[in-house]
Amino acid sequence: METLKVTLPGRSYEILIGGGLLDGCGARIRAVTGAETAAVVTDSNVAPLYLRQVEESLRAAGFAVFSVVFPAGEQSKTTETLNMLYERFAAAGITRGDAVAALGGGVTGDLAGFAAATMFRGMDYIQLPTTLLAQVDSSVGGKTAVDLPQGKNLVGAFHQPKLVLSDTDCLRTLSRRVLCDGMAEVIKYGMIASEALLGRLENLRGPEDLPEHWDRIVYECCDIKRAVVAEDERDTGRRGILNFGHTLGHAYERAYHYETYTHGEAVAAGMVKMLELEEKQGRDTAALRRRLTALLRKFELPAGIPCSMADYREAVGLDKKAKGRKISVIEVETPGRAEIVPMEKEILFALLEETL
Amino acid sequence: METLKVTLPGRSYEILIGGGLLDGCGARIRAVTGAETAAVVTDSNVAPLYLRQVEESLRAAGFAVFSVVFPAGEQSKTTETLNMLYERFAAAGITRGDAVAALGGGVTGDLAGFAAATMFRGMDYIQLPTTLLAQVDSSVGGKTAVDLPQGKNLVGAFHQPKLVLSDTDCLRTLSRRVLCDGMAEVIKYGMIASEALLGRLENLRGPEDLPEHWDRIVYECCDIKRAVVAEDERDTGRRGILNFGHTLGHAYERAYHYETYTHGEAVAAGMVKMLELEEKQGRDTAALRRRLTALLRKFELPAGIPCSMADYREAVGLDKKAKGRKISVIEVETPGRAEIVPMEKEILFALLEETL
Repeated sequence: METLKVTLPGRSYEILIGGGLLDGCGARIRAVTGAETAAVVTDSNVAPLYLRQVEESLRAAGFAVFSVVFPAGEQSKTTETLNMLYERFAAAGITRGDAVAALGGGVTGDLAGFAAATMFRGMDYIQLPTTLLAQVDSSVGGKTAVDLPQGKNLVGAFHQPKLVLSDTDCLRTLSRRVLCDGMAEVIKYGMIASEALLGRLENLRGPEDLPEHWDRIVYECCDIKRAVVAEDERDTGRRGILNFGHTLGHAYERAYHYETYTHGEAVAAGMVKMLELEEKQGRDTAALRRRLTALLRKFELPAGIPCSMADYREAVGLDKKAKGRKISVIEVETPGRAEIVPMEKEILFALLEETL
Repeated sequence: METLKVTLPGRSYEILIGGGLLDGCGARIRAVTGAETAAVVTDSNVAPLYLRQVEESLRAAGFAVFSVVFPAGEQSKTTETLNMLYERFAAAGITRGDAVAALGGGVTGDLAGFAAATMFRGMDYIQLPTTLLAQVDSSVGGKTAVDLPQGKNLVGAFHQPKLVLSDTDCLRTLSRRVLCDGMAEVIKYGMIASEALLGRLENLRGPEDLPEHWDRIVYECCDIKRAVVAEDERDTGRRGILNFGHTLGHAYERAYHYETYTHGEAVAAGMVKMLELEEKQGRDTAALRRRLTALLRKFELPAGIPCSMADYREAVGLDKKAKGRKISVIEVETPGRAEIVPMEKEILFALLEETL
């Protein structure tokens, strides 16, 4: 088992990474919260696999347990599902001193985390991420959110978990596509912060090599994110680098109604497109693009997704990194080093237009 | 004009109190936010009175202005109205760097403040409170919330405003009942923190004397709240004293579906009932009760509201100050001094039963 500590002003929490962590989760959660009841939030895919195990461990640690299962999928990350959670919590007699455990992927963590951030103006919550995407990215750093019809993650809060337990045994039950979905964020970490990680990924043959390396991969990614979040919890500066590939990625997800492409697939295409835009601005990113696209291909991720200017414009208009006429774009020129660059939206659109 | 400064770790903001403040609000708001667009949220009662004036002042200060008017009343403080705000903000192209101005009473401030706390994970917001209740209480301290069908303020966030402009000229347009509604919280401040304030209120003949004193009254109340919030922003300790009368008050509001009694009327009855419960525990609160009920009568507030044990139980069960079998109750034995006392809920119910 690997342990990381996220240190923030006034509070800190641990991320534990390794196989078998769900089995003993109750005792570890008991150590970080004074809750009497643990409300477990999970989705219809994860519940049959791990819910009973988690409930039993929580009960053995002395918690009263109350579980809510919602339909799996990004289409559940809405204010409607959120309101369902609020009303179920209230009806079950959950109080401010109780805790929420988010058991599942990114949707579950974001949704349950936001419910915990806002119910009673803030309850303890624990992340039990079961997908690679959630383990390397969304479970760490305290960003919680739901989507609006106008765009992803438009409503949310910063609310740090009390503990993150990343049981890498859960990754064995992921489909190949969902595993590769998470690899997009792993590759992103390499691109923005660690050429060494990029190199290690290049040494893998493909998804089949992941199981013997994922404890280390999850650890390295969380360590990068931990450092970035410690420096800029509220995402007003350096934390923006984590969004490399995401502004355009959100456009792809949105253009296809969050159905055709996974988040990771959209981010993969978004990273390649950003390098193309850098090229249009006169920088030589050809070698890096070749490296990136080869890695994406190895992990069955797309290097491009067709998208209209109208879809780009709508998504960029809703991007949280937009401010008036400007938007912050994340650029990588040297592998392992990202820069945040303010850009007029119209210039971004003009560059995009050149690539269509 | 009076000025107070709320100082919190890492940020601070001013509360300005006086006549005519809405007229020049744009320039003052311009000084505290980098927003390009100001989204004004107000209700159907306040919009005809002050919305144009505020919009014009904001435009004169260089803001693009976007306004949303919702139906007046506590029944609008719901997740439905909140979602309407989110979708209107998103549709209007509001971005994370823009600002929300809450123009109105407590419902408007809580609702618009929570929308600002959560849209894009947090936007700037400015409080423009127009009722006495909002000026002395809800606009200060950063508590934002909406109600659930199960109870008031169950969903919310701590999100401090950038500025509070309390234009006491607005109080002239309040109905006598709405003005007296606010006096319940004023009397509460006297009870928990300032016998001098109680004495000054006792020297007034009634609501008709308020206009020449309200700048001072609003100032004193905000000063008390400012000090309490600075000590305990997140309401984990001393801030609880502000809830004197509120746990039982919420039961009264809830039992009558938030229709029969105003918040202040319910809090008034809740304060008297708390003194009765102290008496049942063997303390002599008779003289203080006489003082309190005389003041309440002067400001046309009820000293008691009929309520069943079932309604008490439901409301206490949902109270945010409840934790497992216990609840924190706020007791006042000496005028101007409040104590937070943990109590078994069943003991609270037994004491209540004795008073029925």
